[in-house]
Amino acid sequence: YPTVRTEWLDRLVILEQFNPSLKNFVTMGKQYEKALTGVTLAAKGYFDALVKLGELASDSQGSKELGDTLFQMAEVHRQIQVQLEDMLKLFHSELLSQLEHKLDLDIKYLTATLKKYQAERRSKSDSIERCQSELKKLRRKSQSSKHPQKYGDREMQIVELMSRHQGELDQLVAVGYRSALTEERRRYCFLVDRQCAVTKHFTNYHSKVKELLSQKLSAWQSSCSQPTKLPERALNLVRQTAASSGNSGIADVLRTSKLSTTSPLELGGPQVSTHCTFVKMLIKCWPWCP
Amino acid sequence: YPTVRTEWLDRLVILEQFNPSLKNFVTMGKQYEKALTGVTLAAKGYFDALVKLGELASDSQGSKELGDTLFQMAEVHRQIQVQLEDMLKLFHSELLSQLEHKLDLDIKYLTATLKKYQAERRSKSDSIERCQSELKKLRRKSQSSKHPQKYGDREMQIVELMSRHQGELDQLVAVGYRSALTEERRRYCFLVDRQCAVTKHFTNYHSKVKELLSQKLSAWQSSCSQPTKLPERALNLVRQTAASSGNSGIADVLRTSKLSTTSPLELGGPQVSTHCTFVKMLIKCWPWCP
Repeated sequence: YPTVRTEWLDRLVILEQFNPSLKNFVTMGKQYEKALTGVTLAAKGYFDALVKLGELASDSQGSKELGDTLFQMAEVHRQIQVQLEDMLKLFHSELLSQLEHKLDLDIKYLTATLKKYQAERRSKSDSIERCQSELKKLRRKSQSSKHPQKYGDREMQIVELMSRHQGELDQLVAVGYRSALTEERRRYCFLVDRQCAVTKHFTNYHSKVKELLSQKLSAWQSSCSQPTKLPERALNLVRQTAASSGNSGIADVLRTSKLSTTSPLELGGPQVSTHCTFVKMLIKCWPWCP
Repeated sequence: YPTVRTEWLDRLVILEQFNPSLKNFVTMGKQYEKALTGVTLAAKGYFDALVKLGELASDSQGSKELGDTLFQMAEVHRQIQVQLEDMLKLFHSELLSQLEHKLDLDIKYLTATLKKYQAERRSKSDSIERCQSELKKLRRKSQSSKHPQKYGDREMQIVELMSRHQGELDQLVAVGYRSALTEERRRYCFLVDRQCAVTKHFTNYHSKVKELLSQKLSAWQSSCSQPTKLPERALNLVRQTAASSGNSGIADVLRTSKLSTTSPLELGGPQVSTHCTFVKMLIKCWPWCP
């Protein structure tokens, strides 16, 4: 019965391939986990740097609300990192550590199963061989005997016994083959089931992140929509400092031009021509216009 | 006019703080980018390992469709990595490289602006000082003179000139202050604007990933819902191999029990008691039941 026996052994071989492949998968999973943990660290550095810029912006009367936006952005990303860390914990507990636990058990289990199976098969084969040699002996006796018919009953008994043993061996092999197929299937189902659990957590994560990111986006966009328009607060400050200089002329000019986004060029007559060149340079060289 | 002048210089100082902070932000951004690139690499290893397991599953008549599920999972994650790579390209082109470009320009620009501003201010201050010393000389002459009234016109002219220079200096300082506030604001707006652009891309990315992950999840889940039920294809194979063994008895037994998920224990009479122990062990020790 080489076909069935080969199949059953083939399946055990595959199980022996499965475990190293699964071990490799777990190793890769840990590297994936490590890479994602690296992201949470790098993201922290990135958003700390954004907070630093937000603090600088908050110090300026002309950019205070942009500081608020930068703080909000950093806060949203802090929340995203918390989500990622939670997701990573689930990735570890619901996939990696469970697979690893099963792997440990399975190596012991497979060794025991194979040993047990080989012992069973040997015992059956031995019984069959014993019957065969007894049958040979009996036939030799029968051939050299003058009354061969007196061995007939005994020979029939041995053939029946051998047939029963052969049947048991066949059952061992065939049922074992089915069990091996089922074992395989259970392993793959468990792996797919764990992958599904992790997929659900990943889906939730991406859904939450999407929500967090889009929640305040329009407010953030409008906060940066007027890069050249100073807030009233800042304009008052400029007016105050101009007035406090005692030169009411400048304060007047500043007041008349309403400190709108119009070019500072409008402020001066010919006497500020050098200054105009300076302001022109300010405007022309300006590399920050989006 | 120390207040206004200090404010203007304060703002330039802040711009000088802004650029190193922004440089740090870009550096952190690159580390974030690198960490995310590390994720795409680690994810590749992880899903290659999953494909390897899928190939093993595909080789088995009892687990073929689980192999398909594993292939699909790997394919979905390959698509997710493509999305992540695209998103990283946008993160680089629409934030990091733009900020870096502005930084390069800005360092040259700020140095030039500060130099120019200091030259302008020195020139105005020098003019005022020249007027003051001339006025002093004139007053000394006027005090020691027998006809002080003859210096009156000249003194008035100098006072007017000095007042004009003073006015120009005040304008330089006040308008410069406003320009500095605007420059600051432009920088923060540009940063927020780029962050918003990147936020939009991140939102799209998370939205697509969520969609990709949830698309086939229910099919994946049902593929692993019956871990102990071998597909008909596999059962036929077991039947064929049992029948081909020539022992019709076993084939009959296997056929009668319909090779369902019922325990193989039902198959045998007392003659398979050793075999039963083996199968019992198969079932009891089985560590893979989810």
